[in-house]
Amino acid sequence: MPTRQQLADALRVLAIDAIEKAKSGHPGAPMGMADMAEALWRHAYKHSPTHPDWFDRDRFVLSNGHASMLLYGLLHLSGYAVSIEDIKNFRQLGANTPGHPEYGVTPGVDFTTGPLGQGLASAVGMALAERSLAATFNQDDCDIIDHYTYCFCGDGCLMEGVASEACSLAGVWQLGKLIVLYDANGISIDGEISAWFTEDVKGRYESYQWQVIGPIDGHDPFKLDAAIKEAKAEKTKPSLIICQTHIGLGSPQVDSAKCHGAPLGDESIASCRKSYGWQHQPFEIPAEIYAEWDAKAKGEEAYDAWQAKFATYKSKYPTLACEFERRMRGELPSDFGATFNNLLEDFTQSHKDQASRKSSQKCLEAFTQIMPELMGGSADLSGSVGTMTSHTQAFDPKTGHGNYLFYGVREFGMACIVNGLAIHGGFIPYAGTFLAFSDQAKNALRLAALMQAKTVWVFTHDSIGVGEDGPTHQPVEQIVALRTIPGMTVWRPCDGYETAWSWKFALEHNGPTALVLSRQTLPYIDRDDEAKANISKGAYILRSVAAKPDLTLLATGSEVSLALKAWEELVAKKYNVNLVSMPSVEIFAKQSQEYQDKVLPRDVRKRIAIEAATSDCWWKYVGFDGAVLGLDRFGLSAKGGKVFEHFGFTVEHIVEMALELLQAKA
Amino acid sequence: MPTRQQLADALRVLAIDAIEKAKSGHPGAPMGMADMAEALWRHAYKHSPTHPDWFDRDRFVLSNGHASMLLYGLLHLSGYAVSIEDIKNFRQLGANTPGHPEYGVTPGVDFTTGPLGQGLASAVGMALAERSLAATFNQDDCDIIDHYTYCFCGDGCLMEGVASEACSLAGVWQLGKLIVLYDANGISIDGEISAWFTEDVKGRYESYQWQVIGPIDGHDPFKLDAAIKEAKAEKTKPSLIICQTHIGLGSPQVDSAKCHGAPLGDESIASCRKSYGWQHQPFEIPAEIYAEWDAKAKGEEAYDAWQAKFATYKSKYPTLACEFERRMRGELPSDFGATFNNLLEDFTQSHKDQASRKSSQKCLEAFTQIMPELMGGSADLSGSVGTMTSHTQAFDPKTGHGNYLFYGVREFGMACIVNGLAIHGGFIPYAGTFLAFSDQAKNALRLAALMQAKTVWVFTHDSIGVGEDGPTHQPVEQIVALRTIPGMTVWRPCDGYETAWSWKFALEHNGPTALVLSRQTLPYIDRDDEAKANISKGAYILRSVAAKPDLTLLATGSEVSLALKAWEELVAKKYNVNLVSMPSVEIFAKQSQEYQDKVLPRDVRKRIAIEAATSDCWWKYVGFDGAVLGLDRFGLSAKGGKVFEHFGFTVEHIVEMALELLQAKA
Repeated sequence: MPTRQQLADALRVLAIDAIEKAKSGHPGAPMGMADMAEALWRHAYKHSPTHPDWFDRDRFVLSNGHASMLLYGLLHLSGYAVSIEDIKNFRQLGANTPGHPEYGVTPGVDFTTGPLGQGLASAVGMALAERSLAATFNQDDCDIIDHYTYCFCGDGCLMEGVASEACSLAGVWQLGKLIVLYDANGISIDGEISAWFTEDVKGRYESYQWQVIGPIDGHDPFKLDAAIKEAKAEKTKPSLIICQTHIGLGSPQVDSAKCHGAPLGDESIASCRKSYGWQHQPFEIPAEIYAEWDAKAKGEEAYDAWQAKFATYKSKYPTLACEFERRMRGELPSDFGATFNNLLEDFTQSHKDQASRKSSQKCLEAFTQIMPELMGGSADLSGSVGTMTSHTQAFDPKTGHGNYLFYGVREFGMACIVNGLAIHGGFIPYAGTFLAFSDQAKNALRLAALMQAKTVWVFTHDSIGVGEDGPTHQPVEQIVALRTIPGMTVWRPCDGYETAWSWKFALEHNGPTALVLSRQTLPYIDRDDEAKANISKGAYILRSVAAKPDLTLLATGSEVSLALKAWEELVAKKYNVNLVSMPSVEIFAKQSQEYQDKVLPRDVRKRIAIEAATSDCWWKYVGFDGAVLGLDRFGLSAKGGKVFEHFGFTVEHIVEMALELLQAKA
Repeated sequence: MPTRQQLADALRVLAIDAIEKAKSGHPGAPMGMADMAEALWRHAYKHSPTHPDWFDRDRFVLSNGHASMLLYGLLHLSGYAVSIEDIKNFRQLGANTPGHPEYGVTPGVDFTTGPLGQGLASAVGMALAERSLAATFNQDDCDIIDHYTYCFCGDGCLMEGVASEACSLAGVWQLGKLIVLYDANGISIDGEISAWFTEDVKGRYESYQWQVIGPIDGHDPFKLDAAIKEAKAEKTKPSLIICQTHIGLGSPQVDSAKCHGAPLGDESIASCRKSYGWQHQPFEIPAEIYAEWDAKAKGEEAYDAWQAKFATYKSKYPTLACEFERRMRGELPSDFGATFNNLLEDFTQSHKDQASRKSSQKCLEAFTQIMPELMGGSADLSGSVGTMTSHTQAFDPKTGHGNYLFYGVREFGMACIVNGLAIHGGFIPYAGTFLAFSDQAKNALRLAALMQAKTVWVFTHDSIGVGEDGPTHQPVEQIVALRTIPGMTVWRPCDGYETAWSWKFALEHNGPTALVLSRQTLPYIDRDDEAKANISKGAYILRSVAAKPDLTLLATGSEVSLALKAWEELVAKKYNVNLVSMPSVEIFAKQSQEYQDKVLPRDVRKRIAIEAATSDCWWKYVGFDGAVLGLDRFGLSAKGGKVFEHFGFTVEHIVEMALELLQAKA
């Protein structure tokens, strides 16, 4: 029977050989973490390779994602649908073994990682999801939710501020089932970390109210077993196990950055094989090693046991079970449509002038009533961004109940936790901050888009309309930054009616949505049935004089009402002008060419786009013969209305621009 | 004589009244921190209100920038050019008292703050600047650099991960002259922080190897004096003084979030006045209080003493003094031009195919030799991004010598520290990471642009050309995100020659510059003298067939060589096509209309823009009759060349696109 060392060495050689074949990759970390991986995956990790999406499996996040070959090795050896051919195709076009682990690409990969720190931060969201679902669904006689969230991370992850933000919250929230194994190898890309990471990590994590275990020898499987056991025994504190390891163990480049990010080379590989006593050819794993690693049978057993348990649960608690299944499937509640229609009706009837952040809150008021899967929160701006409703209740670490998270002033950490909640399953997380501070969360929004995580962002205070807080708080370029993230959908509604549609989209869409909302009051806008029916297409004709007007005004959000007044003046002067509202550029871009041409007829080249934000991308819709009223400089501290005026966002100026264009030769 | 309490109360009522008049602002924090401010500014702070730019003054960073009225009150009372009228104009258009403190707008404001945490993180950079300059210029018998960096911060600042990143580095770098007064009032916007900030802050900062003093009573001026004295006595550890305070002290809203972000209202203000025993009308400060606060005479004295010291220094060390003066002025060395010309010559002579990150390193090799003000660094990617040269030496905390910073994996903290170095003066900081991770630093890059801080960013691995590391490491939308920051200049050079010009611009320009550079090798490109002369204009005709071609190809960076091959094919087929290289969109946009029309003639509407990044903004340059070869989705893990091919970045595809356009009717 193979020794545990040999089982770990199998991971090492798979990583070494795959990286060598690809001539690209990061061998040092898999070699250093192989024993940690063997201890966790073979002795503690609850999973079923044949059911990689089993809801009550433990979760595993490889926060130092460059060690991807460690994970692919684990998946391959454990019996997931990752074949030896897949391993040989590491980092090749179309393979399910990309350079960094990608959720949705490889069965068994629970989260996309690569940008350091974010995996760890998102693992906090996953552990929170488990805690919350357990509190909601488990019954005294039947626990259907009971799994751990494990995370591997390296020194680099702990240097990143996002880890500090999220881990601090993990302490607050008492996430005892979050267990982090810290690969403390003392090396990062630039060399020995003693010149840039001299923190007392143990002290730091204890200050966050974590249980810190170790430092232990990260190559001693039995010490690892004991540490994991100790971590599991602690019910309220998250655990950090400090595992002292040797990066590139067994290679001549051991304990140096040289083995971090490049193939080892033939000579070094030979030396590794010798040091491991590994006699086999590349990609050859002895049957007895496969046999020892194979987790399929044990996994099936665990899976079947859970299914049996769930069947009992279902018979005892049919309503709860039905709700649980709905949430696992990510299905909206049956009264979603009716709730939405009521909202629309309400916005229409009330004719109310209202900031779109307030309209958004009104939508949330309705949806949080019927959707317990909505897990809300804000980075310390709950009142301003309108993310709390009469149906939200603060998450209570003691009971695990509650559907609202006070994230504190931690935008990036919040975004990672939101991603973790969404990818875990069972939740549609939404969260809010000022649009200007979406910057801080940017890379996590990007990861959400890459994973197509269903998350909803409430970004308020969306322009210079912020007013007195001044340029640090007035977004300018952020809308474009969000729109250009591939797979992100941005909505900038102009009133309550459009806001309701944007929420509907966000809750139905499988991917991240950013709602960009005003601080200031926006007028209620009347629209006909055709306009109403077309909001969901991202852009529509709000006011029409002719199928082929002489000029089209095009606006979003708070600028639509300005454009509407300008339109009224122009029409009063007998000009043929249409007005288009474009709450979502990305959705409009996906419509049929026919619809797009109807809204913006090709031969109507006199167009003015109006948005109090970066102008650059609007030329796509107005061309050389059009104009953009945008903002390509920082704002100013003054009353919102004054700032708007100062930068030419006035009815008068729009009319002037229109007249100038109308009078230009075609 | 007024009591210290009364002196602090003067700050309180100024804040209360100014915020009430503006009907906007944050009274709670100034009211809570007034005693801290009195203790520091009247008893420890070295400054000269009549010389706000005095180089050896202490620096003061109000990291919780919403407390801006505290700072304006301090400046007004101390005798800076902030009049009572300015205070009355708080938060009004054009006033020098904007909503949050803005560097360059108000004399005496040392840094722009507002986004929490960043002020504190940047103060680390300022303290580092002092340490480095002191090590470089001070002599045993004459210290011309000897000042402290003080920072006020609140709970929110400490929640932000960026503070963790930078403060960890402050510990590594042993910045003993950094003194942070932490306004621990237990309240943030969402309420009592005990529900989201339960960290043991003392333990956390001790884990960073800081001296932590307190908690002390933040309203006891003598305890504050003693704590500041203790902090100053510690020479190697940065100090955190935990000051327990009451937000909104004296108001009925004390100790609650209610006084955080809105005017107090008449009733509450009356109650404050009563509690302070303050008898005066709004904006009336008794003469004896002005007299006690007036720091002009003492400041002049300190300033004159320093001038005298510097005169002695100058006579003893004329060469050093001259160099010091040059660096204070931010003047380039006299051999800058010659060095640049040599570089150009070198790139021309060597005809070398080279990744632009390597070309950038070559430029740095030359510039670091002659410019000791260059303080380099990288977030743990020094080798990959080419920021080290044979003239860089790691900063040594023991001696203060060295011109290179190992930031560890901390992009955001790095960017804040870079900003602090630049705004302190005496340095041109540059730093590098992968372009994809510019996301993490985004809001600090924005602040740099807002302050026009002279900083240089080396962002490498600039597209899907990254290859195997896959989509998490392949930037797509980041170039646009940088270009759209108002006041940021982005260069994406296509070869060594353009890279040299981009470095020249970056080092001469007063503002932030982002160099966007390839991982992969780029071919050397020949160009004629006119082309060479026009690189500095941001875009130029690289290959011309006719003044008015039938089609123009337009490309940046790594795509220029592709476009060049396509151009060659098209010209071989006898098509009239020009090729434009546009290394800097922003600089080109600033050129005369005449020049712009020459490069892109108005009536040549068949244009193709080629850039392996978000396409949206390119329509500005190609219009409805042009085309864009861009990338509006995430990349893939595979060899860089394969990924390029996969997404159509091939000569063949460009030729095909061109032929299609050429054959379309005009």
